[in-house]
Amino acid sequence: MTPPPDADTGLLAPGWAGSPAASTTSDGAYLQALLDAEAALTRVQARLGLAPEGAADAVTEAADARRFDVRSLAERTRGGGNPVIPLVADLTEAVGKEYGPYVHRGATSQDILDTATMLVATRTLDPVLADLQRTQRALARLAAEHRDTAMPGRTLTQHAVPTTFGLKAAGWRSLVLDARDRVTEVRDDLPAQLGGAAGTLAAFTAYGAQNTEMLTAAFARELGLDAPLLPWHTLRTPIADLAACLAFTAGALGKIATDVLVLGRTEIAEVAEGSGGGSSAMPHKANPVRSTLIAAAARRAPQLAATLYGSMAAEDERPAGAWHAEWEPLRDLLRLVGGAARDAAELAEGLRVNADAMREHLDLTHGLIVSERLSAELASVLGRARAKELLTRLASEGRPLDSAPELADVDLDPTHYTGSAGALTDRALERR
Amino acid sequence: MTPPPDADTGLLAPGWAGSPAASTTSDGAYLQALLDAEAALTRVQARLGLAPEGAADAVTEAADARRFDVRSLAERTRGGGNPVIPLVADLTEAVGKEYGPYVHRGATSQDILDTATMLVATRTLDPVLADLQRTQRALARLAAEHRDTAMPGRTLTQHAVPTTFGLKAAGWRSLVLDARDRVTEVRDDLPAQLGGAAGTLAAFTAYGAQNTEMLTAAFARELGLDAPLLPWHTLRTPIADLAACLAFTAGALGKIATDVLVLGRTEIAEVAEGSGGGSSAMPHKANPVRSTLIAAAARRAPQLAATLYGSMAAEDERPAGAWHAEWEPLRDLLRLVGGAARDAAELAEGLRVNADAMREHLDLTHGLIVSERLSAELASVLGRARAKELLTRLASEGRPLDSAPELADVDLDPTHYTGSAGALTDRALERR
Amino acid sequence: MTPPPDADTGLLAPGWAGSPAASTTSDGAYLQALLDAEAALTRVQARLGLAPEGAADAVTEAADARRFDVRSLAERTRGGGNPVIPLVADLTEAVGKEYGPYVHRGATSQDILDTATMLVATRTLDPVLADLQRTQRALARLAAEHRDTAMPGRTLTQHAVPTTFGLKAAGWRSLVLDARDRVTEVRDDLPAQLGGAAGTLAAFTAYGAQNTEMLTAAFARELGLDAPLLPWHTLRTPIADLAACLAFTAGALGKIATDVLVLGRTEIAEVAEGSGGGSSAMPHKANPVRSTLIAAAARRAPQLAATLYGSMAAEDERPAGAWHAEWEPLRDLLRLVGGAARDAAELAEGLRVNADAMREHLDLTHGLIVSERLSAELASVLGRARAKELLTRLASEGRPLDSAPELADVDLDPTHYTGSAGALTDRALERR
Amino acid sequence: MTPPPDADTGLLAPGWAGSPAASTTSDGAYLQALLDAEAALTRVQARLGLAPEGAADAVTEAADARRFDVRSLAERTRGGGNPVIPLVADLTEAVGKEYGPYVHRGATSQDILDTATMLVATRTLDPVLADLQRTQRALARLAAEHRDTAMPGRTLTQHAVPTTFGLKAAGWRSLVLDARDRVTEVRDDLPAQLGGAAGTLAAFTAYGAQNTEMLTAAFARELGLDAPLLPWHTLRTPIADLAACLAFTAGALGKIATDVLVLGRTEIAEVAEGSGGGSSAMPHKANPVRSTLIAAAARRAPQLAATLYGSMAAEDERPAGAWHAEWEPLRDLLRLVGGAARDAAELAEGLRVNADAMREHLDLTHGLIVSERLSAELASVLGRARAKELLTRLASEGRPLDSAPELADVDLDPTHYTGSAGALTDRALERR
Repeated sequence: MTPPPDADTGLLAPGWAGSPAASTTSDGAYLQALLDAEAALTRVQARLGLAPEGAADAVTEAADARRFDVRSLAERTRGGGNPVIPLVADLTEAVGKEYGPYVHRGATSQDILDTATMLVATRTLDPVLADLQRTQRALARLAAEHRDTAMPGRTLTQHAVPTTFGLKAAGWRSLVLDARDRVTEVRDDLPAQLGGAAGTLAAFTAYGAQNTEMLTAAFARELGLDAPLLPWHTLRTPIADLAACLAFTAGALGKIATDVLVLGRTEIAEVAEGSGGGSSAMPHKANPVRSTLIAAAARRAPQLAATLYGSMAAEDERPAGAWHAEWEPLRDLLRLVGGAARDAAELAEGLRVNADAMREHLDLTHGLIVSERLSAELASVLGRARAKELLTRLASEGRPLDSAPELADVDLDPTHYTGSAGALTDRALERR
Repeated sequence: MTPPPDADTGLLAPGWAGSPAASTTSDGAYLQALLDAEAALTRVQARLGLAPEGAADAVTEAADARRFDVRSLAERTRGGGNPVIPLVADLTEAVGKEYGPYVHRGATSQDILDTATMLVATRTLDPVLADLQRTQRALARLAAEHRDTAMPGRTLTQHAVPTTFGLKAAGWRSLVLDARDRVTEVRDDLPAQLGGAAGTLAAFTAYGAQNTEMLTAAFARELGLDAPLLPWHTLRTPIADLAACLAFTAGALGKIATDVLVLGRTEIAEVAEGSGGGSSAMPHKANPVRSTLIAAAARRAPQLAATLYGSMAAEDERPAGAWHAEWEPLRDLLRLVGGAARDAAELAEGLRVNADAMREHLDLTHGLIVSERLSAELASVLGRARAKELLTRLASEGRPLDSAPELADVDLDPTHYTGSAGALTDRALERR
Repeated sequence: MTPPPDADTGLLAPGWAGSPAASTTSDGAYLQALLDAEAALTRVQARLGLAPEGAADAVTEAADARRFDVRSLAERTRGGGNPVIPLVADLTEAVGKEYGPYVHRGATSQDILDTATMLVATRTLDPVLADLQRTQRALARLAAEHRDTAMPGRTLTQHAVPTTFGLKAAGWRSLVLDARDRVTEVRDDLPAQLGGAAGTLAAFTAYGAQNTEMLTAAFARELGLDAPLLPWHTLRTPIADLAACLAFTAGALGKIATDVLVLGRTEIAEVAEGSGGGSSAMPHKANPVRSTLIAAAARRAPQLAATLYGSMAAEDERPAGAWHAEWEPLRDLLRLVGGAARDAAELAEGLRVNADAMREHLDLTHGLIVSERLSAELASVLGRARAKELLTRLASEGRPLDSAPELADVDLDPTHYTGSAGALTDRALERR
Repeated sequence: MTPPPDADTGLLAPGWAGSPAASTTSDGAYLQALLDAEAALTRVQARLGLAPEGAADAVTEAADARRFDVRSLAERTRGGGNPVIPLVADLTEAVGKEYGPYVHRGATSQDILDTATMLVATRTLDPVLADLQRTQRALARLAAEHRDTAMPGRTLTQHAVPTTFGLKAAGWRSLVLDARDRVTEVRDDLPAQLGGAAGTLAAFTAYGAQNTEMLTAAFARELGLDAPLLPWHTLRTPIADLAACLAFTAGALGKIATDVLVLGRTEIAEVAEGSGGGSSAMPHKANPVRSTLIAAAARRAPQLAATLYGSMAAEDERPAGAWHAEWEPLRDLLRLVGGAARDAAELAEGLRVNADAMREHLDLTHGLIVSERLSAELASVLGRARAKELLTRLASEGRPLDSAPELADVDLDPTHYTGSAGALTDRALERR
């Protein structure tokens, strides 16, 4: 089905269009999650004797996003400031006269929208976690394979001392594992929301509930979410935790992308994306598109997270603005990270490593890349001051270091000066 | 036409769904603007003898968004990292064999996407400016009407000294005028983009252009945009200027919304939105929905602008990420401000002012609201120190001030202590 | 000692000036932490036989911040772009000729600065945690005391249904506990940094180290920090984790402050800070200064955290800018949160609660605050539609609800409609 | 004078320590600006007959920052939440019994602090503008000198088509001019603040002022600031405008720094900073310290500006938090931009350009850098499709382009394919 011209499908979003996150976070996906929350509530109420069984069946059957006009809902969100109000109207009508009164019974809009958001988050984080696993496995392979591939270590854009590509890949992987651990921890604790108009669950009692703790627990269980200790309408820990783990993941993948962009420059070409992107004007270009898109996500995620953190300071029992300011930024974060994780997996799996280029570059500074080693070794012979003097002179003259007689016996092979890179790589790879 | 479930139509965006900005910034609107840019380029080339007239006609005719599959384009953006590459392919095909080679001739993707973005911005800012005008007119009326309506001035949440609602409304209006001026200035200078692959316009020359300055000027004129002094692929002044004026406008409207939210609280009720939003659970609620949605926009806009400012540090002749990170945030800003301007116009036009409540609240502190005046007047009689002592004592005792004999002759009427509020209001209203 | 006019001591920072965090994060405190890191490194090297015992003693003795000219160091940071380079020069000179060569041996500037930052963080987070404990204890007391104090629940600024102050305080406390848990988890894992020029620890080996893993572990232990799995020069998990827990804490305390600011408004006055701040012009004002300063911190923290998250995308083995962009924002975050935690403790311990005002406000809407209950109860008698109709009519007429004959038998006492507030409060207080 | 260990002097701030902005934004500088505002107010009141001449002299004499204990003030800011309250107390005491009552007469803390902030901004922006002028002049020289120095144009990190260093430098300069224009416009309009407790100027009238408009105008003139149309306690246009022009400037300079960092990489080395920074471990390193520090500023400025934009939504006549959240971020922005402008001037003036390296790199892709030209020229001979096919084949085979017989007659010299770079440079240099 072709979308109408006033619907968005990702035209400005190569970073996430077509990804699993695009499907799990669309308006349609949110609509289904809202309906899932409503249906679960009625089912649970029926189970506890607060609604007839028929209501549970009727709501469950009606709660199918395909039956609702999402654009009409979108336009009507404005009346009350959220999508649940028109949805409850439409759902009630769809359920029919007999069981309509059991729709949304006792709940407040925020119960449904917050719960739906947690469902969407869960459904998005699962493929994210899978892609992070693919990424870390590919990086583990690269790290092991290139455990001893020496390359220039670079600091403040300049060659410093040698390192290995294995250590670099192991470092990338450790960030991915950190991201995986943070996302997993947050994902496993996402709570349902149930509090009623002001978080006291009073309406549920008014409708006959004896034990609202049990009601909340059953509601959460029905949806595969955690039961919260308190309604969290204005205690936004779950949102802040999502912001943290998503911004972290974007940053972690952003580090990898940033390195690939540097190392893949035409002049460096130590790595290349498996397949590059084309250009509209230059037939020869192979652009590092995946890294570019990940880097773009990493630029945006921190500020989206900042908006979510800013919404923690939410007044009263439901704030006038702070809550509403969360919806789109959280979805954007989920999408960006979802797309970036997909791109990272492909990037890691397809990365081509040019060990020869790395080796060549180690000689670009004519031995200065091991000047630290020379400092250390010469210091014991000449003293620290004279050693430094000698090296600074050679560096400024641009002469090859092995032309200096004092350095005749020193091992100037940069591939021999990688320190503990191998051992560090081995150790890092033990982490699962 | 009902959008498919994986398209977005604003379900999470009561702040802008259904607004003029929703139409001018949709994927379809961007697609049309991209096509407008392509068609203008071919037409201008034809006019300068660089393409046959038939090509201009063919491209112009083909450049109709309704003929393209926006979702397919969205999914193919990923290949090269931007939507222009697949669009050029589809447009070339649509134009056909004879004139296809004249599509996008000499241009780079960024020429088209940046130009289209400027078109979208222009098309969105026009209704924004209209809504700002509506808003300021309504506020001018309120300010004039309530020039002498005294109310408590509040600082750090506490009653301070009296002010007037007229001055408050005049202040709101002055912010709206500041926003209008900033938006107008930016809108009128938005430039077309034309530079070719690396901003040298070389390909246009290769295809026969004698004078690329003239080409650029004609291209800009054709689209109603400014001609840039230089291609601005990585000189992002127009984007930063848009960020500034949009964040400013969101903040200006946010100030109004914040005040309305405070003054409309149940306990204060000095103002109310013309028609309140409903609630899914409580039949009596009349929520300040417009203020809430404007406040939500004001919370998000600064961070979106920050991302755009961050993208100014764009490396090379086209950056790997900084450019891509601009697209969605700029659209989000345009939408949020577009929606907020609409809501602000309705808010200002419909605002109900309860002058009686304002008058009553002036007495809430039993005269302390004019303690500053008393300080001033008593100081000349008793000296500053004793005057302060007396007032502090009365304040701490909670006694009505007129019970103190020293204050028998002082005018304690708070409506008489509004200083220059009236004159300031008059002066502010002279600004057009 | 009076600071010179070009030094900062917090004149613009009432939020943190004079707090424990002000002392633990000053330039002097950072200088001492840098020296602590240098001294620990030499001591550990001596212990492993890589330096003479005398060097350890000499460096330890010299590593006293009071002996160094911090301003001179500040001005010389510019040469190499960080404070460690001039510090190593001064420290080497202070240590003297014999042992000078053992200063900073094998290390890179970032080893020392990152380690010092972790020390500063630890030293700041300890008083933060203590203040969070004070805060949660005071809030637990308030929650227990006011378990059954009914008050208006407010949503979108309007009275919704009743809640209790106990539940509100219990909610505040749960956020403080969430903050405490997140800060504790991060604080306990802060790692030392040791990697040498490019993170391979090669120079340590060049200077004779056999087992760099042991060296790193001993260095970390010496400083009470964790040993990192890998050098983290460009794997910024510890910085991102600090950003997350600090932004979270600012937001958690910000929620409390926001509520106190609302509830303490002149018209509401349900709570008041223990002692208010004065005004330069109005003798009677008692401003909620602590809440104001906490609220200000909560406005700033998210964007500071965003900058830190943004620095995760750090290229190479040491980035040109991303690292440098972390230093001041992280310190700002530590200070702001340190100050806010102090203010929150005082705020919670001193908060005055006006239960009578709360009770009175429950009647402000003439019974509409229990309209939800009436909806529920009437629905079973009249049917949902007619019940809603009746209530909407009464609400729009502004008539007291008990004037309607249909409502004669319904319990309209708002203090009887607090649902599970008491049970939720009890449950929340069980959390330790 | 050595600062005490708990004062800050820029140890963590190589980007601005020691710069003009460091002096104009220190606590001492703010203190002096606060005193300047107080003294100007008393002088103006004396001139209008609202205070004795002696008071004007006494306050002016006492208003010397060196006489005040800034740290004591800093610690006392907490009581009322701002530095003016303790300062007025100390200044009143310093002025003495007779004229003390004329200190701060009629004013509110915010009048003084906002006015002082505008003074500090003015005093900081003047050297910023001077440094921007130095920068643009140096860049103009570079652009003219290298008008025809061909170099690779790079897009998405890959060689695209040739450009010139002249065009690049001209582009940098155009951003600097844009920054200069924006800063100048804002600087010239910075207003004094005068409104009294709630912005009505009532207290000035109570103390006898006949014409508060004249009072405000005289106060502004006395300080070299603009007279505002309205008191702007919660109409934060001047703060937002400062945020915009400062974030813009940071971004503009950030673009230059980013390019220098890329072009100065060891493998590229087309440019180098005039004198590089040292390293604590590697004697040969010449780090691009200025670019690094500018890049760090450009990473931080957007989020600082976001906080300032966020503070526009300030409730009431003085907000509880939004105002307080402005102070440090605005100072940080002024400092960062002040330091960055200094560094940019030095960077531009000292930049070394290696035209030979640029020329060599044009050959790195064996002719593919002119593939766009070949596309254009071959298309007319072979048709677009076959031309693209041929070039793609050659590119994938890595063969030098001149080995293809079809290309025998085409000019493959990349220095001949710089399009309008020269003309664009000339045109851009005409801008003053």
